Amino acid sequence: MMLEPKSFKELVLDYKVVFFDAFGVLKNYKGIIPDVGTTFDFLKQHDIEFYVVTNDASRGPQELAASYQKKGLREVVPERIISSGMLAREHLRYKVSTGTVAYVGTQGSAHYIEDLGLKALHISDVDIEDVEEIESLLLLDDEGFDWNVDINKAINLLRRKTIPVIVANTDLTYPVSKNDIATAIGGVAEMMEKIVGKKFIRFGKPDAQMFHFAFEQIQNIGHITRKEILMVGDTLETDILGGNKFGLDTCLVLTGNTLPNKYLQKIDSTGIIPTHVSESVVS
Amino acid sequence: MMLEPKSFKELVLDYKVVFFDAFGVLKNYKGIIPDVGTTFDFLKQHDIEFYVVTNDASRGPQELAASYQKKGLREVVPERIISSGMLAREHLRYKVSTGTVAYVGTQGSAHYIEDLGLKALHISDVDIEDVEEIESLLLLDDEGFDWNVDINKAINLLRRKTIPVIVANTDLTYPVSKNDIATAIGGVAEMMEKIVGKKFIRFGKPDAQMFHFAFEQIQNIGHITRKEILMVGDTLETDILGGNKFGLDTCLVLTGNTLPNKYLQKIDSTGIIPTHVSESVVS
Amino acid sequence: MMLEPKSFKELVLDYKVVFFDAFGVLKNYKGIIPDVGTTFDFLKQHDIEFYVVTNDASRGPQELAASYQKKGLREVVPERIISSGMLAREHLRYKVSTGTVAYVGTQGSAHYIEDLGLKALHISDVDIEDVEEIESLLLLDDEGFDWNVDINKAINLLRRKTIPVIVANTDLTYPVSKNDIATAIGGVAEMMEKIVGKKFIRFGKPDAQMFHFAFEQIQNIGHITRKEILMVGDTLETDILGGNKFGLDTCLVLTGNTLPNKYLQKIDSTGIIPTHVSESVVS
Amino acid sequence: MMLEPKSFKELVLDYKVVFFDAFGVLKNYKGIIPDVGTTFDFLKQHDIEFYVVTNDASRGPQELAASYQKKGLREVVPERIISSGMLAREHLRYKVSTGTVAYVGTQGSAHYIEDLGLKALHISDVDIEDVEEIESLLLLDDEGFDWNVDINKAINLLRRKTIPVIVANTDLTYPVSKNDIATAIGGVAEMMEKIVGKKFIRFGKPDAQMFHFAFEQIQNIGHITRKEILMVGDTLETDILGGNKFGLDTCLVLTGNTLPNKYLQKIDSTGIIPTHVSESVVS
Repeated sequence: MMLEPKSFKELVLDYKVVFFDAFGVLKNYKGIIPDVGTTFDFLKQHDIEFYVVTNDASRGPQELAASYQKKGLREVVPERIISSGMLAREHLRYKVSTGTVAYVGTQGSAHYIEDLGLKALHISDVDIEDVEEIESLLLLDDEGFDWNVDINKAINLLRRKTIPVIVANTDLTYPVSKNDIATAIGGVAEMMEKIVGKKFIRFGKPDAQMFHFAFEQIQNIGHITRKEILMVGDTLETDILGGNKFGLDTCLVLTGNTLPNKYLQKIDSTGIIPTHVSESVVS
Repeated sequence: MMLEPKSFKELVLDYKVVFFDAFGVLKNYKGIIPDVGTTFDFLKQHDIEFYVVTNDASRGPQELAASYQKKGLREVVPERIISSGMLAREHLRYKVSTGTVAYVGTQGSAHYIEDLGLKALHISDVDIEDVEEIESLLLLDDEGFDWNVDINKAINLLRRKTIPVIVANTDLTYPVSKNDIATAIGGVAEMMEKIVGKKFIRFGKPDAQMFHFAFEQIQNIGHITRKEILMVGDTLETDILGGNKFGLDTCLVLTGNTLPNKYLQKIDSTGIIPTHVSESVVS
Repeated sequence: MMLEPKSFKELVLDYKVVFFDAFGVLKNYKGIIPDVGTTFDFLKQHDIEFYVVTNDASRGPQELAASYQKKGLREVVPERIISSGMLAREHLRYKVSTGTVAYVGTQGSAHYIEDLGLKALHISDVDIEDVEEIESLLLLDDEGFDWNVDINKAINLLRRKTIPVIVANTDLTYPVSKNDIATAIGGVAEMMEKIVGKKFIRFGKPDAQMFHFAFEQIQNIGHITRKEILMVGDTLETDILGGNKFGLDTCLVLTGNTLPNKYLQKIDSTGIIPTHVSESVVS
Repeated sequence: MMLEPKSFKELVLDYKVVFFDAFGVLKNYKGIIPDVGTTFDFLKQHDIEFYVVTNDASRGPQELAASYQKKGLREVVPERIISSGMLAREHLRYKVSTGTVAYVGTQGSAHYIEDLGLKALHISDVDIEDVEEIESLLLLDDEGFDWNVDINKAINLLRRKTIPVIVANTDLTYPVSKNDIATAIGGVAEMMEKIVGKKFIRFGKPDAQMFHFAFEQIQNIGHITRKEILMVGDTLETDILGGNKFGLDTCLVLTGNTLPNKYLQKIDSTGIIPTHVSESVVS
């Protein structure tokens, strides 16, 4: 293994498209990573296209893009955002044509359901004695509901009616400050799945479907092969494992989950090997 | 396998001591199982001793016994109650001699800690920036705290300080009505354990420690061998598996988790085989 | 749910392409399912295209097709075979350009490696003291090696060198007679993964990548949407879960893993719901 | 945490009984750890009793003791050996009174069954078409059978007949040289359990039953409390976790699984905290 950190701006020149993970790569708990705009300029200058590929179903691509634009990063337009929430929405589009979709998350996250002309029913509004019209359950976000009451209600819904459950974010946790994390809806989903003993349908990295969806999206900018794409992420188990499995070259950056003084040991203990390592996307 | 249901009162005559699980055996969501008093009378008449062996850390043996006595079951005295909470307390007694024990549960469940002269600190009162004096974390009950805020706080406490975590009830769920269940602290503990990647110390059936503790307790009524004890429960994975492993004869009753029309199939699919099956403890 | 069995030949008329699982659908332990040729004739007559989508890396598409052709099923040409072994080969093509690939399986299965111009080294020929040139480990088949000696050797190889491990078949077992099964390489891989504590890269149903690969393959017969494809399988956890997740309609057939008298109960207990149920593909 | 390594001979003076793990503590792949006899002399001189508490079912206590005596360690008599195989034997004694016990392991390991007057049937001698007399399956050792043929036969035995399965060693692996390990029967058992979907009954550290059995054994030397016993081991997940849970003080030694330069990090990442750390039992 040749896993010494290299300059991101040098190594990226070998690719035509970059997939960036969002958290730990472009931003962190303090906000946008300083000088990330210079990297976007550099990519533009060298005709390298980029996308943000993120496990996030709390908001739609419009709102996600807006959060970058407010910080002056105009390049991050909605068309460049590919989120696990979009995959869940595509799944509903193909598999659920009628009826009511119960959901767990903020009222805002319901737009993924309403976009499709389906009826969205917040878990707090579900009447457990009258579940006939509910055709599926969608787990979107860890906020916007009462954990104790509504997680138990969702579990009992699944015990009373056999319906598909779609999880729109596979992450177990997300960072909320320098030291602290919060449990993501993917973590709650694992507990629920274990308790009801049923199989949920999960969307998000490292699953190949996330990368296929991104790969399909970029084909409208011209024919791109896997060899021409670089996946950049801060997490071995999601970004790098998923990118590797899909056949992409991968670059681990050390600005998030994986610390500079521990990355070699983590690669060794997990057996997940990135193609490159960079200190950050501005290096 | 000879697993036709037999009369409990006939088969119990071969034993000197009975260990009863509580929920699904002596009581259910509607209260005490009808006529269970006749079974206690029958046991007394035949000089058969009994104990209630229960995964419960929400209340102490006094309060647990009181809930039976209020219903007229005077035989269920505190000395006959053996709970997973008592095991957790014994563990603290041996392993934690000083300092503060943070706990998750109702304020009432803290008596397990205070009994030992230790300082109990409710998770909601933990200051995450000042955790120096906290020497262990005790997970007692699924009530008495804010799930979203306090589960995340407990997770971050474990990320900031390496301390032992004791789980005083291994159950994933418990029944709250004919159809519905609630997530028990054991289910929450599994999610937390997965997220922090650490090993918690669990107490409760099917773990052998629960049966050893009960076995030690009964030796003060005279020398009893394993062959003379019958473990009675409604759940294959806890009561029956644990009893079998400890070397006891076991009796599955069909008044709780395991339904009369499914018990043979469940025995077959789990490979957990009770010595006897009875429709109920009053049969 | 409307899950009464329907005639396969009626329901298939709503689709343009069928993906058939092989084992339990087109063949079983006794050989080709009787009259399956009439189904292929029917599909041809109605201009419905089909593919065989199978978790199998023991042989290449040529040999797999030959096994059908020998039985008179001329329609099953190599171009209609999509196997998990082919996915593993594609992965190697993108990610491993030089060096030696150690493999576990029959000597015959090595063609997946040699096709790409890479050097294939059977696990029995690996010298554990000289592993420098080995760049990855490929788990192909449960036959062709000494389980005790070579599984342990593969484990020690992974302890000595951090290399990617590719598993070319996710199945835990496969049927060998009416009553009996054998452990597949996917089952062996899970044990190895647990022991070395590393993440392997797995190919096969229910993973989306299998369906994406098939989906890409069929685009050369004209533009086909997901709505026009039917996935047919005998196993809820692989064929139906994977097809559902990919957004396909799915049909559970009762000629293999899922028995006619248990399928409703299995759908209920797993929460995996097929679009249709048919007694067999010849119904 | 005060986890600087201390002198074993100093810290052991606070205890009346020591439980030693065998591998990594008293011996390693090269044989007996040099000068371990001086530690036994020291214990004797200070009236400290000791036992060897080991996950091993390949041989009986006589043979295990003989292997120490041959090296001049006369103190290691059979009465001081407590093995997971002995626990499995006790379990059979209580729970299996008649019939045939099929077993997986060397012919020699069958003595655990034959000691009890039961008929032992080696897995290779099982006729899968005639399993009526087989009342349980005992997994003893990873040697003495054909892995491919006999593991699959054991799996099919469990599919054909619902019988209890007893695993006499929970370890996943054991060391065979400085760098290499071999899969133990506990690792094979996990694969089998996953494939058949049934619950096996396991004996060995970290399970409390192992410590209870040892605790009962030592009561014949006089009344000993948990506070007076020190568990010494090289593995956090078995020796230390199990000792802690049972309420014993624990001492991690750095002569085996846990390396001197990594022990603090491993304690931190697992959350398993020994009472003491020593470089070795001769320190």
